[in-house]
Amino acid sequence: MKILIINSGSSSIKYQVITMPEQEVICNGMIDRIGLESSNLTYVTSKTKLEESLPIPDHKVGLEKIAQLLMNENIGVIQSTEDIHAVGHRVVHGGSYFSDTTIITADVKAKIEELCTLAPLHNPAHLVGINVASAIFAKAKQVAVFDTAFHQTIPVIAHKYAIPNSFLTEDKIRLYGFHGTSHKYVSEQAISYLENSSKIISIHLGNGCSMTAIKDGRSIDHTMGFSPSNGLVMGTRSGDIDHSLIFYLINTLGFAPNDVNEMLLKKSGMLGLTGYSDLRDIEAEAEKGNIDCQLALAMNAYRIKKYIGSFVAVLKGLDAIVFTAGIGENSSYIRKLVCTDMEYFGLELDDAKNEVRSKEMREINIASAKTKIMVIPTNEELEIANQVYHLFLS
Amino acid sequence: MKILIINSGSSSIKYQVITMPEQEVICNGMIDRIGLESSNLTYVTSKTKLEESLPIPDHKVGLEKIAQLLMNENIGVIQSTEDIHAVGHRVVHGGSYFSDTTIITADVKAKIEELCTLAPLHNPAHLVGINVASAIFAKAKQVAVFDTAFHQTIPVIAHKYAIPNSFLTEDKIRLYGFHGTSHKYVSEQAISYLENSSKIISIHLGNGCSMTAIKDGRSIDHTMGFSPSNGLVMGTRSGDIDHSLIFYLINTLGFAPNDVNEMLLKKSGMLGLTGYSDLRDIEAEAEKGNIDCQLALAMNAYRIKKYIGSFVAVLKGLDAIVFTAGIGENSSYIRKLVCTDMEYFGLELDDAKNEVRSKEMREINIASAKTKIMVIPTNEELEIANQVYHLFLS
Repeated sequence: MKILIINSGSSSIKYQVITMPEQEVICNGMIDRIGLESSNLTYVTSKTKLEESLPIPDHKVGLEKIAQLLMNENIGVIQSTEDIHAVGHRVVHGGSYFSDTTIITADVKAKIEELCTLAPLHNPAHLVGINVASAIFAKAKQVAVFDTAFHQTIPVIAHKYAIPNSFLTEDKIRLYGFHGTSHKYVSEQAISYLENSSKIISIHLGNGCSMTAIKDGRSIDHTMGFSPSNGLVMGTRSGDIDHSLIFYLINTLGFAPNDVNEMLLKKSGMLGLTGYSDLRDIEAEAEKGNIDCQLALAMNAYRIKKYIGSFVAVLKGLDAIVFTAGIGENSSYIRKLVCTDMEYFGLELDDAKNEVRSKEMREINIASAKTKIMVIPTNEELEIANQVYHLFLS
Repeated sequence: MKILIINSGSSSIKYQVITMPEQEVICNGMIDRIGLESSNLTYVTSKTKLEESLPIPDHKVGLEKIAQLLMNENIGVIQSTEDIHAVGHRVVHGGSYFSDTTIITADVKAKIEELCTLAPLHNPAHLVGINVASAIFAKAKQVAVFDTAFHQTIPVIAHKYAIPNSFLTEDKIRLYGFHGTSHKYVSEQAISYLENSSKIISIHLGNGCSMTAIKDGRSIDHTMGFSPSNGLVMGTRSGDIDHSLIFYLINTLGFAPNDVNEMLLKKSGMLGLTGYSDLRDIEAEAEKGNIDCQLALAMNAYRIKKYIGSFVAVLKGLDAIVFTAGIGENSSYIRKLVCTDMEYFGLELDDAKNEVRSKEMREINIASAKTKIMVIPTNEELEIANQVYHLFLS
């Protein structure tokens, strides 16, 4: 069966066609800059690599263009839209409604819409993608896979904030957690690989960065909270701050609240500390002796170390840590900083293994280490395909 | 030599007279509700216990009243103001200027005044106390002891936020840390008592709550930051939140920024979670089966546990944890919650020892535990007196 995976952002659509149960990606690509003068489209199969600049005014035109390519006589991978059995939609925010992958009904769409206030950049774009895909792939089941779903097992002791109760009960303000599809995927990979895997910490380091404490396969705590802005230091996001400085910036330094928010989301993190937001640049500068870059990398790792410690307290032990996503999979520099001086937690890096570049799941601890250190490439699209497929089997 | 210790708050003055090097408290008391219709004054010596309600319009009148009592023929403890050799002033915020106890000069006062923007509730009141005490005890050295001083050893990796650099370099926004006099006092007590004491976590649980990671006697990390509002769950303060919820409250729910600030400082924490702010009430309710109270206590302990884990990562090990201040010294309930399921860190509570009520420093771990669990009553006034005394010796 063929599953189309759609990740519809505010001005972009990423897509893959995956056959199940073979788990074969027969086509993938993206469109970005939707609505701007000129959009970029890519379309990749085993035989074809197409890159095109063309005007794509909205998501409807974009998805129609993708459908045409998929069905194209020469470079297509399906005969008709009916060959797509299901469309799996990535949805960032499922609130407290969705702890599992769900077939999209009118009621589900209403709930995703209701949650737009919690994810104003993402959920509206997902709804557009769902509506357009439902029209084009009318015979396919439309399925939503939520980034927050994996974290719905986080207990109230960890998901509630110490603010008046009504903010949780009435306004639904709580820790939701993000990158759930990634954390679920890599932790399941780790669990099937490891002998001892009841206490895992997954460390997702990409554009956004987050960590999850995973007990017996279930998320029990997480570094991001109500939105994907706190926790670890990120490319342009501050991660954890003392919230009182927001009021200081507003009341004493005269900032508008939205300027503070913008600063914390878009001008902070590694960019604010170094002037660079791409980690490869920062590592190169650090190696040349740039002190700001060295400090920023050290701060980044310091906060990861602290969360490892706090999650060990929550898990009551530690079997393995797992690095994943762009930075986690590729930056031996960051992995080395994180794992140095962490013998207390049984973490001992094998420097040679850490330096190997690979696309495979691998162990990078020394053989005698008590705790495994793993690098596991994430694959959110495959995880979405798996979940959609299992929904049909069940 | 006789040292007068003054803790001058916005509407209160707490005071003690301590003889050094004997460390004897020969008089203590307080005035509160200064400026209201009727103030309360207490004055306690070994022979006298005076409580009085009277109008005290300002700090000057209050300190003059205290001076009169100190010199009173019948119940006084000094003959003249000249018998006070030094006045030690508690000052909450010393910014990055003061890492040590300091004799107050015009320049020091100017700096304390400059720091009023960072501690708007405290530093102005301290300046009033300093000015009035300088006039009354004109021959005495006036000395400032800063709550932030002990934390000036926290390295940049831990005291810098991941926001644009100029906020640190120009606006001095960083982690300062608080309760430093208490953390210093109890950690020094622990160090002189313990065989292994290079890695200590001190846990100050009072009206405000904070924890410090102490390596070889020096503060290297701390739960509070730019102001005393984040970190642990407190009586009415939220402690750590995802800061993005502030913008959600402002932009989506329509709150004014200052109402959010007020809510986080005065209506959150244990009060927001339970309706009670006094821990004794909350414990009593929890024991009666009140679920909100049980959860709030568990959340409180959960966050302490997480910080223990994160500070172990920072300290690269753990020799002892120290509970102090009102709740830390008296609540066996909270101590038990914190130390349960923490064997990974070598923490094993002796339940019988934990239940003993005492004003003495004591160990409450089982004899075979790898990590010591101590209760050490804090004494900020004595610490201030010690520091003032040593300033004169040096």
